Amino acid sequence: MSEDGQSPRGGGLCDPGSLLPDYQDIVAAAERIAPVAKPTPVLTSRTFNSHYGADAFFKCENFQLGGAFKIRGAANAIFSLPPEQRANGVVTYSSGNHAQATAIAARHAGIRATIVMPDDAPKSKLNATRGYGATVVLYDRMRENRNVIGERIAAETGATIVPPFDHAAVIAGQGTVAKELLEALPDLDTLVVCVGGGGLISGCAIAAKALRPGIRIYGVEPESADDFRQSIAAGRIIEIPPPGTIADGLRTLAPGKLTFEAVRQNVEEIVVVSDEEIREAMRFLLFRMKILAEPSGATATAAVMHGRLPAGLGRTGIVISGGNVDPEVLASVIAV
Amino acid sequence: MSEDGQSPRGGGLCDPGSLLPDYQDIVAAAERIAPVAKPTPVLTSRTFNSHYGADAFFKCENFQLGGAFKIRGAANAIFSLPPEQRANGVVTYSSGNHAQATAIAARHAGIRATIVMPDDAPKSKLNATRGYGATVVLYDRMRENRNVIGERIAAETGATIVPPFDHAAVIAGQGTVAKELLEALPDLDTLVVCVGGGGLISGCAIAAKALRPGIRIYGVEPESADDFRQSIAAGRIIEIPPPGTIADGLRTLAPGKLTFEAVRQNVEEIVVVSDEEIREAMRFLLFRMKILAEPSGATATAAVMHGRLPAGLGRTGIVISGGNVDPEVLASVIAV
Repeated sequence: MSEDGQSPRGGGLCDPGSLLPDYQDIVAAAERIAPVAKPTPVLTSRTFNSHYGADAFFKCENFQLGGAFKIRGAANAIFSLPPEQRANGVVTYSSGNHAQATAIAARHAGIRATIVMPDDAPKSKLNATRGYGATVVLYDRMRENRNVIGERIAAETGATIVPPFDHAAVIAGQGTVAKELLEALPDLDTLVVCVGGGGLISGCAIAAKALRPGIRIYGVEPESADDFRQSIAAGRIIEIPPPGTIADGLRTLAPGKLTFEAVRQNVEEIVVVSDEEIREAMRFLLFRMKILAEPSGATATAAVMHGRLPAGLGRTGIVISGGNVDPEVLASVIAV
Repeated sequence: MSEDGQSPRGGGLCDPGSLLPDYQDIVAAAERIAPVAKPTPVLTSRTFNSHYGADAFFKCENFQLGGAFKIRGAANAIFSLPPEQRANGVVTYSSGNHAQATAIAARHAGIRATIVMPDDAPKSKLNATRGYGATVVLYDRMRENRNVIGERIAAETGATIVPPFDHAAVIAGQGTVAKELLEALPDLDTLVVCVGGGGLISGCAIAAKALRPGIRIYGVEPESADDFRQSIAAGRIIEIPPPGTIADGLRTLAPGKLTFEAVRQNVEEIVVVSDEEIREAMRFLLFRMKILAEPSGATATAAVMHGRLPAGLGRTGIVISGGNVDPEVLASVIAV
């Protein structure tokens, strides 16, 4: 069981529930988060379609508040808390976008947020999280367990833990991405989503299957971070060694309990792409489509570009999950 | 008179008309170009608004086909040609976005396009233009006059010249940018547009003033390429030495006859920004808003960011004119 996949323990914690959210939970989430999450545009590219034989629709969560889809799940979890529980604040652990999202949602709710982040997290993400008013607690991800730190803080302060993905309210919030996309494009045949801890694909799969039962959902992982692919193949949650992929948002060690179940039930297949394929997708998105995707955000695109999915995808939704990239990383990607 | 500003002479050429287009011409242009130009999204940024005390709406022509607004004017000019004139093809001179736009529109119309381009134009732009099926004729911009070459080709082949900006049909096409924006946001108070040859701001000003007579229009030039500012101040067209600004799309030497008149009639003021301010705007657009703007495309944003416009702008439309940037230029912009 990875750090991320582990169900939270400690002080006042969100009830992760034993069941996955259903579509009604996603509908309720959409209403709950409307004051803070914004609807994101869907872009198309004739060049992409003609180069790669695709009929693609890019759902741009890189334009989301906080630069990634994560605000949807964090806001849904926080706004669902009863007032007396909110008063003690929230705590979470995240190397990146979930940290910023929790900080933004907590500020919007007027409560304190403490974020446990690795000391090697991208500077932009550390600074942005602090900029949103959260308290950042750094840890050494090679030697310390962030869950333990988060739980200690929760126990000491009574704060509620908002886990990054393995939580029904978080999954329901992320599902609003696909709800929006399918409402705009009801006749999609395929949906392609990157897979880290699996919160995004789980919520999206539940929403998409409810709105269009015949839709095929594919997950994409970096080849060195294929914990979901291995786990689905084995039929049980498998933990992998810390992966070194450029896609910092997808470096989870194992699926969550809920997200494993959601993917097992709803996803056709998990495919993988190389880091160089991710870089190439970032360059295409940047120089041809003029949008900045972070490496994780370009991963689903990379799978379509490099033919990692079965033929005959039809009308294909591709989720650009986020766009938070440090200038040094971007410089390395564009220097070819 | 600059090369660009000069009215075309030669073989079968577009009639530039002696009058500016009116709003009905822009309505007709919108219908004519609909098969090729695509409606572009409008983005907002809470971070931009809170950092810069703005209420801004970014019209993203960097997402346009060909990567810039230029397809609108080129397509309108080409699609307006009578069939017998189309048959002889079109010719234009441009080192950048108008070249690609003319090539795309000509291919769409099923006619030949010849583009006169400087032999030191970036390979990416040469290749892109050829990739759209156009014939590229290279010239030495230190020793040859591209207009003369274009006119010779027009005379020899009967091709029609499609000038980059000083042409009623081109201006009407560019005006569809503001038509779209004002139809989406009818209560804008201010519109900020970059100024090169002035085709974009001329068309946008005509459309915006027709839809919302009280709107204020501001033009923005790089400080080393302030031919419009000088010309408006002098009350006559003034030619400047070749400017060295990073904003390669705005390096015109003088206003056109039509565009000078349109700006004189409709624009409140022309302001200028430095190249470093343009770079800073590019970085904000890229890292905070996740969109790639070319230097010209970030120029209007730079003016709002750096307070170059009067206070009390109200609801402000900002046109991102294009997003075609070479990787080397982008690398130099993000390395700070």
